[in-house]
Amino acid sequence: MKKQTIKEILQDYKKVLHHDITVYGWVKAFRANRFIALNDGSTINNLQIIVDFENFDKEIINKISTASSLKVVGEVVESQGAGQTVEIIAKKIVILGDNFTEELQTTILQPKKHSLEKLREQAHLRFRTNLFGAVFRVRHAVTFAIHSFFNKNQFFNIHTPIITGADAEGAGEMFGVTGFDLNNIPRTEDGAIDYSQDFFGKQTNLTVSGQLEGETAAMGLGRIYTFGPTFRAENSNTTRHLAEFWMVEPEVAFNNLEDNIDLAEDFLKYVIQYVLDNCKDDLEFLDKRFAEEQKAKPEKERAKEGLIEKLQNVVAKRFMRVSYTEAIEILLNSKENKKGKFQFPIESWGADLQSEHERFLVEKHFESPVVLFDYPKDIKAFYMRLNDDNKTVGAMDVLFPGIGEIIGGSEREERIEVLRQKMKEMHVEEEELWWYMDTRKFGSVPHSGFGLGLERLILFVTGMTNIRDVIPFPRTPKSAEF
Amino acid sequence: MKKQTIKEILQDYKKVLHHDITVYGWVKAFRANRFIALNDGSTINNLQIIVDFENFDKEIINKISTASSLKVVGEVVESQGAGQTVEIIAKKIVILGDNFTEELQTTILQPKKHSLEKLREQAHLRFRTNLFGAVFRVRHAVTFAIHSFFNKNQFFNIHTPIITGADAEGAGEMFGVTGFDLNNIPRTEDGAIDYSQDFFGKQTNLTVSGQLEGETAAMGLGRIYTFGPTFRAENSNTTRHLAEFWMVEPEVAFNNLEDNIDLAEDFLKYVIQYVLDNCKDDLEFLDKRFAEEQKAKPEKERAKEGLIEKLQNVVAKRFMRVSYTEAIEILLNSKENKKGKFQFPIESWGADLQSEHERFLVEKHFESPVVLFDYPKDIKAFYMRLNDDNKTVGAMDVLFPGIGEIIGGSEREERIEVLRQKMKEMHVEEEELWWYMDTRKFGSVPHSGFGLGLERLILFVTGMTNIRDVIPFPRTPKSAEF
Repeated sequence: MKKQTIKEILQDYKKVLHHDITVYGWVKAFRANRFIALNDGSTINNLQIIVDFENFDKEIINKISTASSLKVVGEVVESQGAGQTVEIIAKKIVILGDNFTEELQTTILQPKKHSLEKLREQAHLRFRTNLFGAVFRVRHAVTFAIHSFFNKNQFFNIHTPIITGADAEGAGEMFGVTGFDLNNIPRTEDGAIDYSQDFFGKQTNLTVSGQLEGETAAMGLGRIYTFGPTFRAENSNTTRHLAEFWMVEPEVAFNNLEDNIDLAEDFLKYVIQYVLDNCKDDLEFLDKRFAEEQKAKPEKERAKEGLIEKLQNVVAKRFMRVSYTEAIEILLNSKENKKGKFQFPIESWGADLQSEHERFLVEKHFESPVVLFDYPKDIKAFYMRLNDDNKTVGAMDVLFPGIGEIIGGSEREERIEVLRQKMKEMHVEEEELWWYMDTRKFGSVPHSGFGLGLERLILFVTGMTNIRDVIPFPRTPKSAEF
Repeated sequence: MKKQTIKEILQDYKKVLHHDITVYGWVKAFRANRFIALNDGSTINNLQIIVDFENFDKEIINKISTASSLKVVGEVVESQGAGQTVEIIAKKIVILGDNFTEELQTTILQPKKHSLEKLREQAHLRFRTNLFGAVFRVRHAVTFAIHSFFNKNQFFNIHTPIITGADAEGAGEMFGVTGFDLNNIPRTEDGAIDYSQDFFGKQTNLTVSGQLEGETAAMGLGRIYTFGPTFRAENSNTTRHLAEFWMVEPEVAFNNLEDNIDLAEDFLKYVIQYVLDNCKDDLEFLDKRFAEEQKAKPEKERAKEGLIEKLQNVVAKRFMRVSYTEAIEILLNSKENKKGKFQFPIESWGADLQSEHERFLVEKHFESPVVLFDYPKDIKAFYMRLNDDNKTVGAMDVLFPGIGEIIGGSEREERIEVLRQKMKEMHVEEEELWWYMDTRKFGSVPHSGFGLGLERLILFVTGMTNIRDVIPFPRTPKSAEF
């Protein structure tokens, strides 16, 4: 790439000081007919352009306004003002694109505070705001850190299928995929839908998880991870749910539950440290925003830590490892439970933990990320490995402050007889998963893995609170714009 | 990760020489009741385990066979035999999983040559073969190289939506996505399908390209790329088509067509060089296989270069840059055209180039990768930038030996009046793309981008010939297994 970004110019300004350079960007602000704050998206920081208006065609100067795009040639000089190291004395300005001034008034590009809802309605433009520029640069950094971590540790990225005939979780809330003209669906003689005539010759859906296919790959390649979109046709209109979101699912041959917990902890710490190291400016912006949001809240609802402080603490602390059984003891004995402060009181072992319980453990009791493991088998999926107690399975959830479960995983049941028994009990059809069963027939091995919802991690790292604000174009009930 | 992979042991054997270590893997072969070739998927190379059967329970020895999985503790020693540097003298062997012996006979894990068709039918097991281990390790390396290249060059990875209400290419061969029960589709009063009652409140499809959404992101963040699955409901049962495949689409604000060609060339060379540097063992295996495949062909159909040689040449050569108009001249004047050797003879300027023409230019005329640019506007998409001649657009295709088009891209039309005119001519609804139009209204800028079909690049790099053999679980007409 021959063009220099504003990020490069500001970072390596010594290389270009007193030289003429060419820069491109959008006008963030134009003050006093003299100071242009130019931004090209490479960084949250603007480059200041000094315009000596006597040297320029008045018509050009008049056309420059917030949102218009410029090419500027000028000399890099040390800045006289505060707030920046260098600035550009403009020698030539070309307006690349000006504005439909009237329409601009109705957009979020207007330089004033807009609600997050309004920004969402103009998701195609919000990349140009400071906030969403920062969020999506951080999202990239998280994504790249994930690939880097796994590559360093000899994992292979596997693209598991998006369109699938299998239902991995036995869930059911799946979107149908079809090549049928819905006005003209072919039928069999007895009136049923004739899926043999559909594109794939069978009924197909959008995947809810790549895990089962990922397991087959790990049974050959050893260490794999998936990184792709997954889908839920769940009618939940909340700040935590998306119909389309991105999942990361590592799967490792020969790993037991403890290895799996170690992997999850190393992985999360690596990614968060990477963001701390590589997104300083964006994090500082988000940290300030987070602090302001907290101020607006009643005191007892405020977060104890600042955003950056919270990230640093997660990296520094060893995650608490607590069995489900211990956690239930703690909850049963807690003042909160005894005084009826939980919406869902804990009554006995076997209860499914709610978000309020997870947050109590993380934020009040341990004040640290917590890994819960060895859950009752009845509240977990069929493929999780049965423990010797016959009551619990080798499941593990990583719980984070402010967010609850960020990772869920398990050691997988590698013993085919046990797996078959579990599938029977839980009404999972063995025939449909013939290929999954095969991996337990020819050199089956202990193995473990987990799933991370990418957007949850981005929420945690950016301090944003609505999941629709950390994915470029959110898909939710009644909404698939753009 | 505390466990050592076989790759690490073989690479850094000096660290473990004369130490006892623990290794895990699957038995590739067990010769003379003494030599176990163990593989864990981390590399194509096996680790040789020496079993002095007098030291072991006979029952264990008898159970060890191809495909079974082992944990082995033993001393690392310098190898006496040829073919490996070190081997392990086994002290303890644990069989992790043995085999359903009868069923094993019907699988591709049987140690003999299987057809690619049969391997495809058992796609869940083919990760364990030498060939597919190599292919999918290379696929990972290509994937990681792509992320690395863009990250180094300050691009941000953007996840564009998979479910979409928009039809980017104006194509039409899209899969429908629905939450409807197809047996019970709600209708409006006049009998039409009532999409307002579907999950998203409108008709939705699987994306065919993330470009248009990607452009909106580039208009804020400057340099972005997408990397995600795309879909075509095209009934093509060929070795080149998949219904679900992965696309990489960079988009760069302020780049013109020449910058775009430079980017494509730098990008491809970086990725291929990365694979040459990081996948030596797998490439050598694939190179040998490629050579054998060539030998089986009639002499005139054989590739001129070996696989690795071909990759090295692509990195070394400057891609030829040829306008469409020049290319037509060359084709019109070629012996092949004059003697009627093309299935589709070139008659005049304006013709759409077929694969045979592209391959003639690349393999015969230039003997080099070729970038064709400035195509007739009528054969290209509405969003490509109109040139001053009013006849051509700033499109560019990168053509590779043996494979034809590997990248297609263009400078985008940033002038809203010109864009509107083109959309009118090509019957693209402006109303549906209101958000795309917006990017041309507020500080529009010149920008360019391209699309790379990931599987095509993997075909090129691995020397495989059927696209179903370079994606883990191919989706094609009448086939969505696993």
